[in-house]
Amino acid sequence: MKITVLTLFPEMYEGFLNASIISRIMKKGLAEIKVVNIRDYSFDKHHHVDDTPYGGGAGMLMKVDVVHRALLDNISNDYTYAILTSPKARPLKQEDLVRLSKLDEFVIICGHYEGIDHRIEKYVDEKVSIGDYILTGGELPSMVIIDGILRLLEEGIAPESLKEESFNEGLLEYPQYTRPVEYNGDRVPDVLQNGNHKEIARYNLKMALKETMLNRPDLLEKRDFSKLERELLNEILQEM
Amino acid sequence: MKITVLTLFPEMYEGFLNASIISRIMKKGLAEIKVVNIRDYSFDKHHHVDDTPYGGGAGMLMKVDVVHRALLDNISNDYTYAILTSPKARPLKQEDLVRLSKLDEFVIICGHYEGIDHRIEKYVDEKVSIGDYILTGGELPSMVIIDGILRLLEEGIAPESLKEESFNEGLLEYPQYTRPVEYNGDRVPDVLQNGNHKEIARYNLKMALKETMLNRPDLLEKRDFSKLERELLNEILQEM
Repeated sequence: MKITVLTLFPEMYEGFLNASIISRIMKKGLAEIKVVNIRDYSFDKHHHVDDTPYGGGAGMLMKVDVVHRALLDNISNDYTYAILTSPKARPLKQEDLVRLSKLDEFVIICGHYEGIDHRIEKYVDEKVSIGDYILTGGELPSMVIIDGILRLLEEGIAPESLKEESFNEGLLEYPQYTRPVEYNGDRVPDVLQNGNHKEIARYNLKMALKETMLNRPDLLEKRDFSKLERELLNEILQEM
Repeated sequence: MKITVLTLFPEMYEGFLNASIISRIMKKGLAEIKVVNIRDYSFDKHHHVDDTPYGGGAGMLMKVDVVHRALLDNISNDYTYAILTSPKARPLKQEDLVRLSKLDEFVIICGHYEGIDHRIEKYVDEKVSIGDYILTGGELPSMVIIDGILRLLEEGIAPESLKEESFNEGLLEYPQYTRPVEYNGDRVPDVLQNGNHKEIARYNLKMALKETMLNRPDLLEKRDFSKLERELLNEILQEM
């Protein structure tokens, strides 16, 4: 996969790209990431990349001509997928990352300042928001998108045994514990130590249901519960 | 504000902390950010920070004792707020950032690997997820939280005139344009060039409604529309 990031702040990517996890994935040849400075495509004397908005307003807007030139110079062909980080989209979900992870190549344009000239939207295939909150720019969102996709690419080449078990699909993960068996008065549940795999699976499913009930009840709203899940939910409610 | 990040990958923060926007805010004295390596709190010979889960499973879990030691050593007092990045929370919203931006001090623990020993949750005040998607670790989420909060701190000290106008609260921002007035056949709307501020305000509100209708209809579901907004919605629908 070839990923190109168009940004006004390429220096922000240094730590991210050199981080052990991301660089490990790149070394496996799963992805090639190029970070391009949008400012290199501003040809006026002072390399301006922004200007004041028509109709007034306090902020500065990124210029459509500069950003579009950067985009045109960094796509392989007409089919290169272009993503714009933007608050004007519904929040990213895991299924979006799965879909994007199947692309051979894409470009991410990072918005910044107060915004970007609206006309850029004509040249992008998709706007992506990582959530309903306001950040200083599109750089962290672009890293979130890349990180989530690279993780999927790596999982894709993992042997079956290492892939996450998904029998608890749609639920939060059950609580997990490692050594020491007792810490500050809190013990690892006995059932997880007894080696009875059937009991452990039942307990973990129960705890996954409980975690989801307590932290994300919204995830249960449309769930089609199995008979065992109903039984476990009853147990949880009786124990509360 | 004093922010401490506990992470296994401190190098990931280099680009972020040195980026012009974040460092500008730090230079204004609005925030002090410290990045601490959790591994420094592992005292065994090989500085292990993770171990296999009880009950089986492929991944490795961060150890509760190591993480808790790191936390204890980096809080000023019992009231220091502790945040754990975790997929087990409802997705972050802007109102959460506003709330957190009022803290004097907080610590963020970045989860990693397959997870973290469940017992750590006893020592944190809040779990924060930045969205319903899976990332390699809590580092990017911690940067998202910090970026969003620092932006609010800086806005807090901005003169009133520079603060974002919020008359369109609950709507997406209207499209904005800057020079050139024509680009690739697309012109800046005439109304934005005529200097009639009343007309511009009406047009911008209309376009904000339209952007929201097209991109985030869910934001309109519970909206209490004003008379003007209803009139503008009618115009939009007739023009479609």
